[in-house]
Amino acid sequence: MSGNTLGKLFCVTNFGESHGPAIGAVVDGCPPGLPLGADDIQRELDRRRPGTSRHVTQRQEADQVEILSGVYEGKTTGTPIALLIRNTDARSKDYSNIADTFRPGHADYTYWRKYAERDPRGGGRSSARLTAPTVAAGAIAKKWLEQAYGVRIRGYMSQLGPVEIPFVSWDEVGNNPFYAPNAQIVPELEAYMDQLRRDGDSIGARIEVVAENAPAGWGEPLYDRLDADIAHAMMGLNAVKGVSIGAGFDSIAQRGSEHGDELTPEGFLSNHAGGVLGGISSGQPIAVTLAIKPTSSIRIERRSIDRAGNPVQVQTLGRHDPCVGIRATPIAEALLAIVLMDHALRHRAQCGK
Amino acid sequence: MSGNTLGKLFCVTNFGESHGPAIGAVVDGCPPGLPLGADDIQRELDRRRPGTSRHVTQRQEADQVEILSGVYEGKTTGTPIALLIRNTDARSKDYSNIADTFRPGHADYTYWRKYAERDPRGGGRSSARLTAPTVAAGAIAKKWLEQAYGVRIRGYMSQLGPVEIPFVSWDEVGNNPFYAPNAQIVPELEAYMDQLRRDGDSIGARIEVVAENAPAGWGEPLYDRLDADIAHAMMGLNAVKGVSIGAGFDSIAQRGSEHGDELTPEGFLSNHAGGVLGGISSGQPIAVTLAIKPTSSIRIERRSIDRAGNPVQVQTLGRHDPCVGIRATPIAEALLAIVLMDHALRHRAQCGK
Amino acid sequence: MSGNTLGKLFCVTNFGESHGPAIGAVVDGCPPGLPLGADDIQRELDRRRPGTSRHVTQRQEADQVEILSGVYEGKTTGTPIALLIRNTDARSKDYSNIADTFRPGHADYTYWRKYAERDPRGGGRSSARLTAPTVAAGAIAKKWLEQAYGVRIRGYMSQLGPVEIPFVSWDEVGNNPFYAPNAQIVPELEAYMDQLRRDGDSIGARIEVVAENAPAGWGEPLYDRLDADIAHAMMGLNAVKGVSIGAGFDSIAQRGSEHGDELTPEGFLSNHAGGVLGGISSGQPIAVTLAIKPTSSIRIERRSIDRAGNPVQVQTLGRHDPCVGIRATPIAEALLAIVLMDHALRHRAQCGK
Amino acid sequence: MSGNTLGKLFCVTNFGESHGPAIGAVVDGCPPGLPLGADDIQRELDRRRPGTSRHVTQRQEADQVEILSGVYEGKTTGTPIALLIRNTDARSKDYSNIADTFRPGHADYTYWRKYAERDPRGGGRSSARLTAPTVAAGAIAKKWLEQAYGVRIRGYMSQLGPVEIPFVSWDEVGNNPFYAPNAQIVPELEAYMDQLRRDGDSIGARIEVVAENAPAGWGEPLYDRLDADIAHAMMGLNAVKGVSIGAGFDSIAQRGSEHGDELTPEGFLSNHAGGVLGGISSGQPIAVTLAIKPTSSIRIERRSIDRAGNPVQVQTLGRHDPCVGIRATPIAEALLAIVLMDHALRHRAQCGK
Repeated sequence: MSGNTLGKLFCVTNFGESHGPAIGAVVDGCPPGLPLGADDIQRELDRRRPGTSRHVTQRQEADQVEILSGVYEGKTTGTPIALLIRNTDARSKDYSNIADTFRPGHADYTYWRKYAERDPRGGGRSSARLTAPTVAAGAIAKKWLEQAYGVRIRGYMSQLGPVEIPFVSWDEVGNNPFYAPNAQIVPELEAYMDQLRRDGDSIGARIEVVAENAPAGWGEPLYDRLDADIAHAMMGLNAVKGVSIGAGFDSIAQRGSEHGDELTPEGFLSNHAGGVLGGISSGQPIAVTLAIKPTSSIRIERRSIDRAGNPVQVQTLGRHDPCVGIRATPIAEALLAIVLMDHALRHRAQCGK
Repeated sequence: MSGNTLGKLFCVTNFGESHGPAIGAVVDGCPPGLPLGADDIQRELDRRRPGTSRHVTQRQEADQVEILSGVYEGKTTGTPIALLIRNTDARSKDYSNIADTFRPGHADYTYWRKYAERDPRGGGRSSARLTAPTVAAGAIAKKWLEQAYGVRIRGYMSQLGPVEIPFVSWDEVGNNPFYAPNAQIVPELEAYMDQLRRDGDSIGARIEVVAENAPAGWGEPLYDRLDADIAHAMMGLNAVKGVSIGAGFDSIAQRGSEHGDELTPEGFLSNHAGGVLGGISSGQPIAVTLAIKPTSSIRIERRSIDRAGNPVQVQTLGRHDPCVGIRATPIAEALLAIVLMDHALRHRAQCGK
Repeated sequence: MSGNTLGKLFCVTNFGESHGPAIGAVVDGCPPGLPLGADDIQRELDRRRPGTSRHVTQRQEADQVEILSGVYEGKTTGTPIALLIRNTDARSKDYSNIADTFRPGHADYTYWRKYAERDPRGGGRSSARLTAPTVAAGAIAKKWLEQAYGVRIRGYMSQLGPVEIPFVSWDEVGNNPFYAPNAQIVPELEAYMDQLRRDGDSIGARIEVVAENAPAGWGEPLYDRLDADIAHAMMGLNAVKGVSIGAGFDSIAQRGSEHGDELTPEGFLSNHAGGVLGGISSGQPIAVTLAIKPTSSIRIERRSIDRAGNPVQVQTLGRHDPCVGIRATPIAEALLAIVLMDHALRHRAQCGK
Repeated sequence: MSGNTLGKLFCVTNFGESHGPAIGAVVDGCPPGLPLGADDIQRELDRRRPGTSRHVTQRQEADQVEILSGVYEGKTTGTPIALLIRNTDARSKDYSNIADTFRPGHADYTYWRKYAERDPRGGGRSSARLTAPTVAAGAIAKKWLEQAYGVRIRGYMSQLGPVEIPFVSWDEVGNNPFYAPNAQIVPELEAYMDQLRRDGDSIGARIEVVAENAPAGWGEPLYDRLDADIAHAMMGLNAVKGVSIGAGFDSIAQRGSEHGDELTPEGFLSNHAGGVLGGISSGQPIAVTLAIKPTSSIRIERRSIDRAGNPVQVQTLGRHDPCVGIRATPIAEALLAIVLMDHALRHRAQCGK
């Protein structure tokens, strides 16, 4: 029942704190025989790494992954794959201030209410740094899905705060630090971020993730539906406040005659369903949207309380992403990969194929 | 790993098909000593029952629940509580037509792709009828949460298709068939539904659910966060295409200085977080929003295919809700109750209180 | 995490009390397309039913199973199969005496310590009656294993109290009420039981269960090993105090040169391993032994205490099996079937075959 | 559903291979606030370490544990505790011989049948080395049980091959390499082992583990009974072929009037139940017995086959324990601790205490 494990057949158990000795994951359930090297994982980790543009935190982490088990002579063996990432840029400083006051909108407060004991350094376990093991595990799922079924998972940013980003081309996504599918809008995004940094404030974002070529038939009728597990995985990511599939919230105002995707012998004529019908994949692209809130660690002073309940003013200095959404794309891809692989394995168990 | 079980410590296993002998649930994990009678459950079931207004399907189901186990002399014993609801209005008719063609937007197609074998009668397992066991189980969770912590869970419809429903008062919610918190708008909703029925079409809706008095500290840091499990439960409900917490998708365009809820010694000054910070409850009301798509069974003819892949025109006659959102409020309440009770029990295990 | 669920992919959730309205199980995870009728299940239930010889309790239960879901037109659909057995011979009588004192060796005492609330009628949930849903679920697993892999699961009694029962032939097992594989010894067993009944006492037994034709490769390296899950299932059965695989406790005094089963191109030369090596099936017969304790409900007076802690003399009258081992064979077969099917499905997920 | 995870609320996920970079475990579910240092874990690891007497393998492993997460300023935080043990004495040599033939009685054969791909070096994942992470995790459980409930878990060897070891005193257990509770018999055990080594053979053993002061009320009625979960954990350990509780296999020949433990106001008068009645702890010592088979890696030549199915003679040279039972005592203690802590947490969830 481990609360830090994602997946039921492809199980990712995440551990670590931002400034402890290491973070990592144990991936249990990967079938044997998958060609896998540290470079397969490193590639994805490098995509989410901080410090690669001026718009993200300047923490200098190598985020070098080590595969501790489950791989022999370049292939998975079917046993647990342990992934280790050492924390190398954990600056030693005095955290007593952070430990004693609560940032508005931050998990500081709720961790304290839940556990009493917590590691406050760099956000401890609530840090966005803990998405690295997720990305590492997701790299395995991505590779397996690609090899076994030709599934391709990609994502992009479709909105940065007030700025909507029209989709132009997948080809542009890798060419800018925002994962924007649109070269023309990048200067506007950069200008927006520069102003935001000057303001000492933060902003939200919208991310889209799509899985193509997932076969029809993955999922369950109710409760552990494919879309339910996707929603679980995505909402389990820091800062996510909303998840939708296909037409999502636009479905509210749609009529059935518009929303229901018609079929022809050549395939579906639209994809309002986002690739999931009745909790089970339809063979269409699985399309997921995330709403990401603005970071809670900002330079602007705000009202809060300390552990004794006294009123304080809180201002967060130091290295913090003004928009965690900027790095969310590879993480959301990893989460979608983990859920799809989990359901692919379930389907094999249930239906033998 | 049962895909038809919701919850990890408070476990609801759902079974049944729309036109089989019975539907029901086994609820495992309810602590001993909770006063419980069939009437506690029946009350909630009656709130979701079809046939109670002209805006919902006219299927005449008594939906009479029988408690088969786990209760002795009016109290739970700590052993599994089996809940049985017989299907009494399963009309015998020829389903070969439905069995052979696929309704656009319906699970018909994906069930067939997944299982090959399926029970097509009345939608089989994909029927909204299967929400009844969820509501029955949720009634137990609601009662336990209320008795153990004073938690109160309520919901309402905030939008019907294009019609937004401004919140006026909780007192109105029970006075109209839409669960609208607003008496004045009811005639407009009725007119809208009457026209929709004449059109033979269907429509989506937006539902809000709120849990008050949930203590701070329920949830987990990542993956099985409280909001993640809420998203899982809600997206596991038929027709839901989006879930959000607190400010939800509005968070995208919010700045951190606006979104982060300030604290004072008297409490939080706003609730953009929707009662969950870092995956753990903050003590504020837990506020959840659902986007519900229009029903796929409509009278309007649409293009589709049959099992042989031939093009067909599909038109669905018979008893079908033109807006499943109308009955979604008590179901969403039940789901929120199940998730909260599950996390309350997890918290007792983890933190001993 | 449901404590009343057996299996992780083939999940059997058991519910009910001896004298409540009904007992049953929900079986989630059975693949679609298995031909299944109530008679397939009834046949196994009839094998464990009380009242079929003078050596078992004379409770007259029809134990008629009803399939409530998951089967359509004689085939499983892949959705949960709910199985219902009504309690029809629950005699109404005054249980206040049983409710207030504790039978030596009985779960009375520990249920009271755990739950405070319990259903004392006929042993409530601790009754051997609750093995009926297990047998019903096991019938499904047996049939699937037979159809999918040709697996054959059989069991017999190898010892009744002090009387060892030499194995003669499988053909004899069904010809006597003891499941003894030996016709000649039956008169001795009958005489032993008759004397025991006159003494008002009870006795233990040893049961053997064997699965033939299970393919090599089912199981896991550690923790959820195939033998570990078998041990879990068997020790989860009422009155079982010991479980062993293959040579079992005889392994203690064996040397490696004797114990390790040699292989030749024609196969293994012995089966001390009992069909499991390193937690994974070897393709040899899987051989399991159970030690079953004597029933705790006996006519002989014994010292005990009441709920207030006062000393009392306890004597149990009424219908009770003097040797629960007599009916244990079909139950142990069912448990082995459930575990094997669970691991067969896991193996399909892991290794795709 | 991770097959390499033990426990449902106190979850131990084990990873690693004998000659890979590292082995370890992630322990999820430990409550916050437990004082914990690496030394608490190291102490237990040192008890099972190879190379500490001439009767066990001379592999020189420091088995130095590093705590990677979940502990801050000497206390657990409630988040996952990752434990890392580097493999330092993994000798590089040619394993192609071992990789191609199967040792009789060894997991070689079944791993190959299951996974096709495997790490053959030093037994890979089937190595007894993988019990180290279990011992490390068990050290946490032991400490928590002791602090929270005063539970004390101890074990000893009661038989080495043909030599029964009468219990004399707990005080002797730590004074000899066999964990024998009997100083006088040690010379006989040493002589037996010396002869066995000269013979190039191996032998089995019987181990007893006892938990004192576990409160009444831990466990579940059926399936996940306390004794069932103990059996699962113990049989999940390498080389275990049998598990029993209390009177165990002696129960077969006992009458109910002898087996059932009488109660008086001062407590139970005997403990044939071994501390578990109806699957739930009674408050008496929980007494478990394990049957451990002889090691399969022996110097004596035996018949086997290679991967191509050809007959071969197999002889295993190198470092191998002639009796894995000698080091099993601390491992069995760890397993019992893990299961008890798991049920302690479940009980807190279920019954709030």
